[in-house]
Amino acid sequence: MKKNILIIPGDGIGQEVTTWGKQVLEAIAEKFGHEFEFDEALMGHVAIEATGNPLPDETLAKAKASDAILFGAIGHAKYDNDPSAKVRPEQGLLKIRKELGLYANLRPILLFDELLDASSLKPEILKGTDILFFRELTGDVYFGEKYRKEDNSFASDLMNYNRYEVERIAHKAYEAARTRGKKLCSVDKANVLETSRLWRDVVQEIAKQYPDVETEHMFIDNAAMQLVKNPKKFDVVLTANLFGDILTDEASQIAGSMGMLASASIGDGTGFFEPIHGSAHDIAGQNKANPLASILSAALLLDISFGLQEEAKVVTDAVDQALKAGWRTIDIANANTASDKILGTNEMGAEVLK
Amino acid sequence: MKKNILIIPGDGIGQEVTTWGKQVLEAIAEKFGHEFEFDEALMGHVAIEATGNPLPDETLAKAKASDAILFGAIGHAKYDNDPSAKVRPEQGLLKIRKELGLYANLRPILLFDELLDASSLKPEILKGTDILFFRELTGDVYFGEKYRKEDNSFASDLMNYNRYEVERIAHKAYEAARTRGKKLCSVDKANVLETSRLWRDVVQEIAKQYPDVETEHMFIDNAAMQLVKNPKKFDVVLTANLFGDILTDEASQIAGSMGMLASASIGDGTGFFEPIHGSAHDIAGQNKANPLASILSAALLLDISFGLQEEAKVVTDAVDQALKAGWRTIDIANANTASDKILGTNEMGAEVLK
Ligand SMILES: CC(C)[C@H](C(=O)O)[C@@H](O)C(=O)O
Ligand SMILES: CC(C)[C@H](C(=O)O)[C@@H](O)C(=O)O
Repeated sequence: MKKNILIIPGDGIGQEVTTWGKQVLEAIAEKFGHEFEFDEALMGHVAIEATGNPLPDETLAKAKASDAILFGAIGHAKYDNDPSAKVRPEQGLLKIRKELGLYANLRPILLFDELLDASSLKPEILKGTDILFFRELTGDVYFGEKYRKEDNSFASDLMNYNRYEVERIAHKAYEAARTRGKKLCSVDKANVLETSRLWRDVVQEIAKQYPDVETEHMFIDNAAMQLVKNPKKFDVVLTANLFGDILTDEASQIAGSMGMLASASIGDGTGFFEPIHGSAHDIAGQNKANPLASILSAALLLDISFGLQEEAKVVTDAVDQALKAGWRTIDIANANTASDKILGTNEMGAEVLK
Repeated sequence: MKKNILIIPGDGIGQEVTTWGKQVLEAIAEKFGHEFEFDEALMGHVAIEATGNPLPDETLAKAKASDAILFGAIGHAKYDNDPSAKVRPEQGLLKIRKELGLYANLRPILLFDELLDASSLKPEILKGTDILFFRELTGDVYFGEKYRKEDNSFASDLMNYNRYEVERIAHKAYEAARTRGKKLCSVDKANVLETSRLWRDVVQEIAKQYPDVETEHMFIDNAAMQLVKNPKKFDVVLTANLFGDILTDEASQIAGSMGMLASASIGDGTGFFEPIHGSAHDIAGQNKANPLASILSAALLLDISFGLQEEAKVVTDAVDQALKAGWRTIDIANANTASDKILGTNEMGAEVLK
């Protein structure tokens, strides 16, 4: 198989983890006789520094021309503490999502048995958890009109959804539910928001086409609670952009570590694969970041964008083996487990590569 | 002391738990020689059934005339599953918040040592957690303009804040932080939302007036995660209406039980006190609901609206004693603890009253 893969390392630890995702893809190409061509491009803070633009035209053009994209992370504290900054790294990520039509963000929340201890939750609550989130990614208050009064006395963001935007992701989520536990929980705030009432209306409608899937509707405040109380009860969770942002991060923490989880953004064209974790500038450049989420993002890329299930499994198995052998980066190490062997980013990457 | 207290039981289990909050207030009045006059009024589904209006004028007039309000819960599944319903129970709650100017919702997340086991979190993660949430309550996407296209192809809600709305609650939160751990965490999504950037701008400004309080800004997705990872690190958390709705419910679950936590809504006039839990129609009328959150809401009422700290302490001590004696309602019972003695709503209420 011949494919073009664009690597966008982005900001902070994005740089050092993505290099391992890429090396794993190279190893797979060699092992299975595929031809993967790699290119690289800038996005985020690094792109602003280099070009003034968080998503340079060149990056967008390369992205559109590639078969799949492996992305690192975005963001920089400099902008976070400057509420008046007009140009921000995150705009690059939001724009590429919109331009590539990446309307569905899939986040599998997987438990690694070896890491049960790394979670704040009791093992008996956690064990058996296996959730697949479908977070809508190109609508909601993220993309609605923004306004700030000149004298800074008022600001607003429009939260909005079109029916078709809910329909297309609902179909994807129901299709996935069919191949899994046959349960779908749609999360909204329909007791307060008109947008959520439209959302619920559409999901109720589409649910009829999937009578074999059991549908539940839950308010976001309750969902944030139930995830802590009984994460096992969820199978596929379908939700809007903002609620999905919050719930998936909460769920990833529940599962033990941010540093382990990958996500896939799919839609009309090129797929986009990235770790759930952020740019973590506080540990950037210190060889401390966990490269496993980037490596698992590469596995998702092989699976979803190229349909290479066997290759993807080789990668996830390699990650499993490294964990079974006791190898840990600092974020997933357990101080109480004497057998944990702490590695840096590069050593962990090399361990998986073996 | 002579005071008028309005009881609004509301929907579902609101009815059966509020009666215990009221009885505790009566007992306190007798013990300490206060004169509490009680009145009662309808709100929510019960008010719609009786009058067609979730907040009848009579209820609002009584509310404005009273010195404090003890409220139960609101909501009914009937409306939740009908996205096109125009009249909804929650409108009553939202309207009374707006009409009484209840802009600050205080939710103390307290751990009861006896209930450590009832949480999904490991005791060592949980122990020592003591958070006070300040959730803004009369702005945000809750009250901005709502719109639904006639053909149901589009819906929107305006998320918005005025500077003064952020200022007044920020002052309250900083003042509280001064009397506690001197730490304040303001939660927003300033990397995406204009509203959040205004929020952060105002909080940064006001922080300068409280140099003795350490300020941190956190994105909502990260906050939802950190609450699970390390709840102890939070002291006062200040956030907007929607984010506060989500985080406080998540935090209450972390603390062990929804059924234990009370909240106070304060602002320009009469204070409003209610359990965090909802109407829970599935267990309504079965003498199963936990009355402790309503009883603790009564304690908050005594403390905050009437300045009766000693009386409030008598109530919280009585709750503590009932727990220490092993009394539990079903929601906070631990199947593994043989010494737990399960009571119904009324028996638990009576136990505290003793
Ligand atoms: C960086 C930020 C804009 C982004 C989001 O909120 O979507 C991130 O939190 C994510 O979840 O991918
Ligand atoms: C019932 C609902 C409108 C309400 C809210 O979202 O504010 C509730 O969840 C709460 O937190 O008091």
